[in-house]
Amino acid sequence: MKRIKAVLEYDGSCYHGFQIQKNALSIQGTIESSIEKLIGHRVPIIAAGRTDAGVHALGQVIAFDTDSSIPVDKWQFALNSILPADIRVISSCEAESDFHPRFQALDKKYIYYIYRQQRGKVFYGPYAYCNLENLDIQAMQQACKQLLGRQNYKSFCASGSSVKNFERHIKECQLSQKDPFIKLEILADGFLYNMVRIIVGTLLEVGRSSIKPEYIKEIIQAQDRNQAGPTAPPQGLYLHSVNYGM
Amino acid sequence: MKRIKAVLEYDGSCYHGFQIQKNALSIQGTIESSIEKLIGHRVPIIAAGRTDAGVHALGQVIAFDTDSSIPVDKWQFALNSILPADIRVISSCEAESDFHPRFQALDKKYIYYIYRQQRGKVFYGPYAYCNLENLDIQAMQQACKQLLGRQNYKSFCASGSSVKNFERHIKECQLSQKDPFIKLEILADGFLYNMVRIIVGTLLEVGRSSIKPEYIKEIIQAQDRNQAGPTAPPQGLYLHSVNYGM
Repeated sequence: MKRIKAVLEYDGSCYHGFQIQKNALSIQGTIESSIEKLIGHRVPIIAAGRTDAGVHALGQVIAFDTDSSIPVDKWQFALNSILPADIRVISSCEAESDFHPRFQALDKKYIYYIYRQQRGKVFYGPYAYCNLENLDIQAMQQACKQLLGRQNYKSFCASGSSVKNFERHIKECQLSQKDPFIKLEILADGFLYNMVRIIVGTLLEVGRSSIKPEYIKEIIQAQDRNQAGPTAPPQGLYLHSVNYGM
Repeated sequence: MKRIKAVLEYDGSCYHGFQIQKNALSIQGTIESSIEKLIGHRVPIIAAGRTDAGVHALGQVIAFDTDSSIPVDKWQFALNSILPADIRVISSCEAESDFHPRFQALDKKYIYYIYRQQRGKVFYGPYAYCNLENLDIQAMQQACKQLLGRQNYKSFCASGSSVKNFERHIKECQLSQKDPFIKLEILADGFLYNMVRIIVGTLLEVGRSSIKPEYIKEIIQAQDRNQAGPTAPPQGLYLHSVNYGM
């Protein structure tokens, strides 16, 4: 039995998220069906991050066990020959038999894109959050600095989450503007449910001058979801990469 | 009765082309249904260019007649409130009562994008032709120069077309490279059926060194579709703009 590690890129537009669901198309379900077509039986896959409906991936990592005779380095091509065009395997290799894509991740990076132009919305709508408001970018950048460090991010976790420990270490949180896009890059040792989208929603409130950048500290200290901004839409979000320190 | 002129942007990925068809989703059918929802009866629309399945538009121009009480400048907002997100009206205004978007066009500009990277294919697949071959860009640029001028382009017209006059005036034909894209911009007083895609397919043969750039002149002179290269896929093609000299 071998454990295969694969890195994936996908356009999440047509999927109801990563996680397998009854009566809805999921990334996980699509990949498990493709593996089944290749080896004749179903095996469960585990992912580094369970992306929501409409969220994309540039470097999702999955693992699964198989005793198939398909050579380890050929899994990429074998799966790509069956997967739909909006899911691609970027690389595949054999992992340690105890490799776990989520538990062993040292940190993950997400990117969020905001599109700031009326024209082109038909093309960018599924791939960025289209927003034409006047935004104070410098204030948003100041707010990003407040979000760095090892802190309790309960205010930035969707209510109803079953998580008990809300402490996470945000190592990078950088907002940059390159017309017609605003790009947020955020690197942390882990993310709470909807954390990046709530951060973006809160940064937008700062950009609108509804929240002062200094107030971010107070929002964090409150440990109360109601103090943070709304959840930004999923289309702008990309799981960029997962780092295992190897 | 007023003639309304509207400029459209659309993502052609989900449509079987502009032209209305039985049992297939078309841009024309979708717009005519939207107008019908607004004014209660169906009116035919005319377009500057009947784009094929999978072809996109950044500046398609349509016209239709109506005696509706919707103010002329409000048609943009009215239609956008009903149209799906992948078709947007960029502007609307009243045109002369004899305005014809196709017959009165002085020239049209098309753009074709080629995407040259393995990564990101899941996102660019529907919006560019993904090609990773080694291509001689300079040779392709030389070939572009041969395509300029008023010439008989029968070799670059899909066979089976009912057109009798194959003379067209290509005023601009420019190929540029900005990694990871190659972009062809082509401006002419009119285009034959599949003309831009056959030009791209032929330029790719030049890029592969299968055809010498000088040979383009001979292909034109042959007036024979079989002398030109294959038809490049529709996904990379955009109707960029239509010029009426006003």
